[in-house]
Amino acid sequence: MTGQLIANLPWVKQVAGHHTPTAFYLTTEMFDGLPLELAAAELSAIVGAPVAAEHEHERPEIYVLLSPEPDGAQIDVHIAGEVHHLRAPAALLVPPHTPHYFITTRAIPGSWCLGLLLQAEASLVHT
Amino acid sequence: MTGQLIANLPWVKQVAGHHTPTAFYLTTEMFDGLPLELAAAELSAIVGAPVAAEHEHERPEIYVLLSPEPDGAQIDVHIAGEVHHLRAPAALLVPPHTPHYFITTRAIPGSWCLGLLLQAEASLVHT
Repeated sequence: MTGQLIANLPWVKQVAGHHTPTAFYLTTEMFDGLPLELAAAELSAIVGAPVAAEHEHERPEIYVLLSPEPDGAQIDVHIAGEVHHLRAPAALLVPPHTPHYFITTRAIPGSWCLGLLLQAEASLVHT
Repeated sequence: MTGQLIANLPWVKQVAGHHTPTAFYLTTEMFDGLPLELAAAELSAIVGAPVAAEHEHERPEIYVLLSPEPDGAQIDVHIAGEVHHLRAPAALLVPPHTPHYFITTRAIPGSWCLGLLLQAEASLVHT
């Protein structure tokens, strides 16, 4: 076996707390089982619009903010009442069982927010 | 603790087989230890230019190809002599200990190739 290709992406799933279905590019069902899930959103079309109400997960989530230019994207991540201002590139850990949501405040085309959901048991994170 | 922010990204590391240092957005050292590493490259500036010679890792790697438009990016991934043609969005598993490299053949601005390196023991992948 020299590789396994999945071409019918994204897999769209409803996530509790999200206003609209979420586009997943990796899920635990893929490749005979993965220890993580990856959601991603291109941000330039959703400036000012939260994609989800405040919600929480059982698993830790890591946001990764990417943009073609430094500072080309900015998001405000609200976690348990505190606000973290992210300027691309940046990564932010959201602990499990912690209410959170984010709003994009600036994004040039080609800016992405990745949401990486880790299996709790696979994470070494201390919370 | 309501979140941990890492702002000094990317962390640039030399990877065996790569022509140029690689930009990592997540590494195993971050957040008190992660079970994965995430590299990423914006593709529109590197069409036709491989970022690495053929090389292999001890760990499985998953490529995720993202683009603002369907089919806005295409890469050819060479794995052990076979070629997989990826059109965004797509995901491809590269098994551990398998020689591979990729060439971008088309990419509109804001297209990204993610390289997610999994810890072998954290992966359920059968090889």
